[in-house]
Amino acid sequence: MLNDYQLLRIPGPTPIPPSVQRAMTKPMIGHRDQETKDLLKQIKPKLRKLFGTKEDVAIVAGSGTAGMEAAVVNTVTPGDEVLVLVTGAFGDRFVKICEAYNLHVHRLDYPWGVALRPEEIQEYLLHHPFIKAVFATHCETSTGVLNPIQELAASIKEVTDALFIVDGVSSVGGVEVNMDDWQIDICVTGSQKALMLPPGLVFIAASKNAWNTIEHNQHPRFYLDLRKYRDNQQFDSTPFTPAISLLYGLEQSLQLLDSEGLANVWKRHQLMKQMTRAAFEAHGIPLLTNDTDASPTVTAIQPFNFHPDNVRQLVKKEFGLVLAGGQQQLKGKIFRIGHMGYCTPADILQTISCLELGLAKLGILYNVGIGVNAAQHAYLRGGSP
Amino acid sequence: MLNDYQLLRIPGPTPIPPSVQRAMTKPMIGHRDQETKDLLKQIKPKLRKLFGTKEDVAIVAGSGTAGMEAAVVNTVTPGDEVLVLVTGAFGDRFVKICEAYNLHVHRLDYPWGVALRPEEIQEYLLHHPFIKAVFATHCETSTGVLNPIQELAASIKEVTDALFIVDGVSSVGGVEVNMDDWQIDICVTGSQKALMLPPGLVFIAASKNAWNTIEHNQHPRFYLDLRKYRDNQQFDSTPFTPAISLLYGLEQSLQLLDSEGLANVWKRHQLMKQMTRAAFEAHGIPLLTNDTDASPTVTAIQPFNFHPDNVRQLVKKEFGLVLAGGQQQLKGKIFRIGHMGYCTPADILQTISCLELGLAKLGILYNVGIGVNAAQHAYLRGGSP
Repeated sequence: MLNDYQLLRIPGPTPIPPSVQRAMTKPMIGHRDQETKDLLKQIKPKLRKLFGTKEDVAIVAGSGTAGMEAAVVNTVTPGDEVLVLVTGAFGDRFVKICEAYNLHVHRLDYPWGVALRPEEIQEYLLHHPFIKAVFATHCETSTGVLNPIQELAASIKEVTDALFIVDGVSSVGGVEVNMDDWQIDICVTGSQKALMLPPGLVFIAASKNAWNTIEHNQHPRFYLDLRKYRDNQQFDSTPFTPAISLLYGLEQSLQLLDSEGLANVWKRHQLMKQMTRAAFEAHGIPLLTNDTDASPTVTAIQPFNFHPDNVRQLVKKEFGLVLAGGQQQLKGKIFRIGHMGYCTPADILQTISCLELGLAKLGILYNVGIGVNAAQHAYLRGGSP
Repeated sequence: MLNDYQLLRIPGPTPIPPSVQRAMTKPMIGHRDQETKDLLKQIKPKLRKLFGTKEDVAIVAGSGTAGMEAAVVNTVTPGDEVLVLVTGAFGDRFVKICEAYNLHVHRLDYPWGVALRPEEIQEYLLHHPFIKAVFATHCETSTGVLNPIQELAASIKEVTDALFIVDGVSSVGGVEVNMDDWQIDICVTGSQKALMLPPGLVFIAASKNAWNTIEHNQHPRFYLDLRKYRDNQQFDSTPFTPAISLLYGLEQSLQLLDSEGLANVWKRHQLMKQMTRAAFEAHGIPLLTNDTDASPTVTAIQPFNFHPDNVRQLVKKEFGLVLAGGQQQLKGKIFRIGHMGYCTPADILQTISCLELGLAKLGILYNVGIGVNAAQHAYLRGGSP
């Protein structure tokens, strides 16, 4: 096997475009100098557009979890009632954060692999009028479910003034997110997914409505105090030392998204979803999630006649193809293909054709080729990305 | 289309492995300092192994053509009789160089796409006893032919003391070359092919026999005087300023070849050839070259019912897939897929499945999938690379 060769198809970190990689090698600059201000100024309008909001988007050096925690500590205080919608491992993480801060947590669990149901949640909120915030996951990375966030927002806003807080970590940049129109109050995303960057940055946008709460919220916080980020952002600055090389990369990745056009980016992700699903359907290998619930950024496959980790090991050894396993209750039961960010239909064709060979070598699959062919036909039906 | 995305599948320049790219960004060092000597010392034994020779290999800053010219000006003088074997554009280049130096050139032309015939050449040499050097191309990049260099060397050495000079530009590192055993007198290769580097370096190895001639050859030369390189190399130095960043890259690419193992590298290239050919054969799309004559590093396809440049344009636009066209007399008649260097069977599957979609979109091909499937089966027959 050719060393130094890897096809990274996990749902994040995702591959870095060469121009982003190059941008990140620019020399360090003073984080209080004009160069950094210029960089932040460039980035600001593009981030707003990405989130579909007129508000500024805070850029925090940290992982996605730091952003989720920021969404909690800036909006609620111990004892507050919150509703957390759990459709997988990352919904569960919101529960853990809320519990760590001694909130009164209502949790609504959905079977892993199934999207949440807005009408049920509306019903629940009608019966629990003191809930101050609702937490949901847009794309549940652990299952490949894309929850219907727009419909959910509408359902929630119909019956309550509770803040609607969304983990958009593996959705923003890969699927449409329209914070202002949809009435999302806080949306969080990470750098290492559809934004084509290494891990290390988290982005937090808040609505006007959310800012009212954040402004007066008494919960102790310092590094994750969103007010500090907002106040500094007005002067194209940051409250704490920013991760400069990642900002260089961000400027370039936003440039790439912009030049492709966000609508085209979303279409490309949609097409990659259809191609991936078509391939497994052709083989009769079960997908964890149905078509409607499935995310354009990650697909989970739940085989019944082979252990997913065996094929993952084999394709890594033979082709350098890296796929993700299952998490928590789905460990050993599923494998996941990430198809977001710096990833194209050509990569899906490659992933599927290699996977078929891996399954053939394991003696699991005999009709090699029908999967990649189904993906090809999905491409032809879907048109150019 | 996602910008900054390209699948470079031309027969050189070839993609650069990330670790080689990183190596080339190391800081500059003094070209007369110990650091450069250490670098050259590291590289020396690995280059010998690559060429299959006990002699040192000269590293010259220049393109492949500079290396070909070095092979000429170091071995012959104006008026000398030489035999140039022409199987394509690069054989023709040897003729042009020899003519520029007023040599008495015998040229033997073979139809483009067909390998040369050692027995005919032996016969020719028997009738032309004053020929001092025979020039041949190992892999003829313009046609995807791999000439039978080992057999040719044996045939030549049976009947003459003429030097046997080989252009190994798109062969060395992708297919076996065993200079000493095969009795090749001079072998030249470039950096941008199977060696996984950018263009800019050319490597020239000479046999003990060739050195006898080079030492006493009166042809004027300065930059390309191989004696200067040899004399300096004994002290791990170079006669002129070396291309330092490319040397950093070379050290790493030789490391990669070494850790994969040269025999495995050749096997991988052989497998990529078989996969590529199987795909077009399945579609009944003619290949320029038969199985025996075809090179493991590049495949030329000669369609009869579509213009190759149309599909090349389309797959570049749709998938960022870059293929090569024909050169000179084959311009507009063939297209070429490079499969050497940083390229794996997974890349062939991707190339073929994208090409099928391109041909389908042009209305040329209806049975999409049978090509990639044939490549998959060739992989399964060929075993792991």
